[in-house]
Amino acid sequence: MSETEMTAGRQFIAGRRVASGEATLLSLKAADGEATGHRFYPASREEAALAAQAAAQAFAAYSGTSPETRARFLETIADELDGLGESFFAIAHAETALPLARLQGERARTSGQLRMFAGLLRRGDVLGARIDTALPARQPLPRADLRQYQVALGPVAVFGASNFPLAFSTAGGDTASALAAGCPVVVKAHPGHMATAEQTAQAIVRAVEKCALPGGVFNMIFGTDIGAELVRHPAIQAVGFTGSLTGGKALLQLAQQRPQPIPLFAEMSAINPLIILPQALAARAASLAKDLVASFTLGGGQFCTRPGLILALKGEGLTRFTAALCEQVQAAPAQVLLNAPTLQHYRAGVETLDACPGVQRLASGEAACGQRAQALLYLATAEAFMAPDSVLQTEVFGPLSVLVEVADETQMMALVSTLQGQLTATLHADADDRPLAARLLPLLSDKAGRVLFNGYPTGVEVCDAMVHGGPWPATTDARGTSVGTRAIERFLRPVCLQNAPAALLPPALQDANPLNLLRLVNGQWTREAISPSC
Amino acid sequence: MSETEMTAGRQFIAGRRVASGEATLLSLKAADGEATGHRFYPASREEAALAAQAAAQAFAAYSGTSPETRARFLETIADELDGLGESFFAIAHAETALPLARLQGERARTSGQLRMFAGLLRRGDVLGARIDTALPARQPLPRADLRQYQVALGPVAVFGASNFPLAFSTAGGDTASALAAGCPVVVKAHPGHMATAEQTAQAIVRAVEKCALPGGVFNMIFGTDIGAELVRHPAIQAVGFTGSLTGGKALLQLAQQRPQPIPLFAEMSAINPLIILPQALAARAASLAKDLVASFTLGGGQFCTRPGLILALKGEGLTRFTAALCEQVQAAPAQVLLNAPTLQHYRAGVETLDACPGVQRLASGEAACGQRAQALLYLATAEAFMAPDSVLQTEVFGPLSVLVEVADETQMMALVSTLQGQLTATLHADADDRPLAARLLPLLSDKAGRVLFNGYPTGVEVCDAMVHGGPWPATTDARGTSVGTRAIERFLRPVCLQNAPAALLPPALQDANPLNLLRLVNGQWTREAISPSC
Repeated sequence: MSETEMTAGRQFIAGRRVASGEATLLSLKAADGEATGHRFYPASREEAALAAQAAAQAFAAYSGTSPETRARFLETIADELDGLGESFFAIAHAETALPLARLQGERARTSGQLRMFAGLLRRGDVLGARIDTALPARQPLPRADLRQYQVALGPVAVFGASNFPLAFSTAGGDTASALAAGCPVVVKAHPGHMATAEQTAQAIVRAVEKCALPGGVFNMIFGTDIGAELVRHPAIQAVGFTGSLTGGKALLQLAQQRPQPIPLFAEMSAINPLIILPQALAARAASLAKDLVASFTLGGGQFCTRPGLILALKGEGLTRFTAALCEQVQAAPAQVLLNAPTLQHYRAGVETLDACPGVQRLASGEAACGQRAQALLYLATAEAFMAPDSVLQTEVFGPLSVLVEVADETQMMALVSTLQGQLTATLHADADDRPLAARLLPLLSDKAGRVLFNGYPTGVEVCDAMVHGGPWPATTDARGTSVGTRAIERFLRPVCLQNAPAALLPPALQDANPLNLLRLVNGQWTREAISPSC
Repeated sequence: MSETEMTAGRQFIAGRRVASGEATLLSLKAADGEATGHRFYPASREEAALAAQAAAQAFAAYSGTSPETRARFLETIADELDGLGESFFAIAHAETALPLARLQGERARTSGQLRMFAGLLRRGDVLGARIDTALPARQPLPRADLRQYQVALGPVAVFGASNFPLAFSTAGGDTASALAAGCPVVVKAHPGHMATAEQTAQAIVRAVEKCALPGGVFNMIFGTDIGAELVRHPAIQAVGFTGSLTGGKALLQLAQQRPQPIPLFAEMSAINPLIILPQALAARAASLAKDLVASFTLGGGQFCTRPGLILALKGEGLTRFTAALCEQVQAAPAQVLLNAPTLQHYRAGVETLDACPGVQRLASGEAACGQRAQALLYLATAEAFMAPDSVLQTEVFGPLSVLVEVADETQMMALVSTLQGQLTATLHADADDRPLAARLLPLLSDKAGRVLFNGYPTGVEVCDAMVHGGPWPATTDARGTSVGTRAIERFLRPVCLQNAPAALLPPALQDANPLNLLRLVNGQWTREAISPSC
């Protein structure tokens, strides 16, 4: 029996595998709910605390590493992930039912994301260096020498998502951005893909060892109700979460009821409105219908950015479009969802919509059996959508969308005004639609983290300009994003050093600018060194 | 009777003065608690809601103004403040007992701060423009055109501080940064200086009118328990608060228990440790004692950054220093505090210290009578400080400080490790003290928003590099600052536009870069326009 086999299913704490009690947690196949054969030990409260303490013990050393050291660490993790072979994809597919090609694409996205943060660390502007040099002769009072930069916030607890077992999970965006920031991480493994999480964690641990970093830089625990222990633990200083509104709200409560409240960034829930304006509708109803159904049924409709609400103005164009939509939905195959709880939630959401006044089923895809979910299209009245506390504002995670026929532009503006916060909002608009699009854009910008034109929100580019965030209930803090380089800001805080002796200044703030940073010096952005006369 | 006299004491709502009921709130003189003659109407719940709604109604128009428009508005407010004359300072002095010179300096700081934000808006980098241009030929998938910038978060409620009736109050840093961000403001006037607040608000309203902005851009209400209504109101999207830990915690609870939780930045409480290392102590015990007592008794000790904890290593140097400290404290005059509640809190804090085991009074200043407070110096054992839930971690607002004699370097590191979050931490260190200073610096950076060398924390420069913030309980969010240009980030959120037609792009994101912004384009910082081939 190899060491890997002997320690399988145990917690990852400071580079060691630790367990107590029995391995009662079972990894299950998404397709039939049967066991994959991998078993896991639920972490005890003590083990959760040990993991948090391990992260805290690693904090001073890890947060003090150079950006270059952290960049190499992230690249090493990326290399380790890229080295995962067939057995990894086999178990990931078994646990999630996600197709192999999708999982391979997601792996490339995940390692690419780690390399992007490595690049960000080398670019260096994330250090946020700002220098106001001393003005000893200023009247009425001299100005001290003041130098600000960003430092790591502290150990971060990460709760991965079920629907992206790589890109939003163990080695996903929250982990990557926290590690880039200099924050050790404790992951709570998602119970829907524990064997996938374990192999991912092993890859990270290999990178920790190769880079000779403290073992406590990365930790992971298994369990179902153990996440609360992490969020409550005094060593944890921030939380990243991707999941349901219910889950996010519960953890937010815990994070804020601590003696020391901590920031929690939860990406939770959105219906991602997609608005089709008249000329666009008239010009390309058929392709819109095809691409839109492909978008909201993609991957079983299990994307945070799935367009779950379609708004269009009444008229002949809409009638044709609706017919085309129905045709596409009817042709949509039933799909295996990620796991049994996800399917249960989907069915409950469908029941709620079926019972909702002013809402009717418009089209149904292939009938579902077993662990599969049926694609569905609903039609709702604008009044039903705008009713107080309408269930239509609530995300139903799975392959369905709701079409609302809007009477006129006034009603369109009114309806959009009632929307809750969203991850995305999409406008399909051609040249003649511009005046209405121009009126809608400020409203949509106020509601969503990302506003798209003539596209589909599923598919989130990992880059500098991305925002995967938005006003509540899309996330807990509209000022954050969980995708793109800006995600790192969630885990950094500024510190100002006043009149620090040159010998004690960190490289980012030294006169000579050894990291060649773009710095804000006396109100000017520059890469120049600071001269003694400055 | 002038219109100003006829409307005196009423709420400021959307450019009008509104009141109901009786003017039962009295402006009081700090010196003797007698009425100044100015009376105010407590806002009703309906008026609080009206103020929040007025801000919401102004939001679309105001958040859509150009940075230049907002810069001119801030400068106009600054000019109006600079135009306030003797009667303004007379009432501000009467209400707060702060000396005229201090108030004039604070006015200059407040108008300077508004002009700083005007400069920030013109510099433009606060728009945070990031552009990743389309890569239509990329494999396996093309990249869309993605453009991110920062937009206003929404209407902001501001709770001013008692101790800075200008710089941290009606027209202070929270108001200035929120207005700069494009957020309309509702101020809850501090009950300790309502007449000062009224004249300040009138100056802002004149600027609103001169700049032809919507009246709802600035609103202010009076009252004692009405702040909660603002924080709960669905139109309010963020809160800025400066005050006590108790007050900040209460508002934080409200902000987070809303159906839609909102960010609240509260600057609350700190003891601002000041550590004197042996060589510095040996070299300049007398001047240190003099300057330190001047710092902690400055303005009645009513600074958020007052050094309330002095740490030094035991030895002959400390004995001499302690004697000098005592001498300085004994010579300190009693001072009138801001108001009766502040004096009551100070006395209660003193009683707590007097009753605390391991703590003794070391020196007392001039005996206090009436509204005056006596300067005090306490001596505490390191053990008393490090005891769980020690009261010595709690700020006592007023002219006192606590000296702890530390046995050795190991105990110093241990004691600093137990410190709660701070606004500032100060090190007095000479060349030979460097090794210990180098060990302490990372610890202090982890505890405080600002770390000073060989200076005194009272006095907060308003500039790009300042951090007036820090880990809990100094503030509710270590990632923020309430002073300096970075304060604006609390009230901005990013939005990403994907494949937006050129005609609909805001100036910040247009190819031609008409605002001449420093932008992050395809991973490079540049002011260049984007060429079509890009």
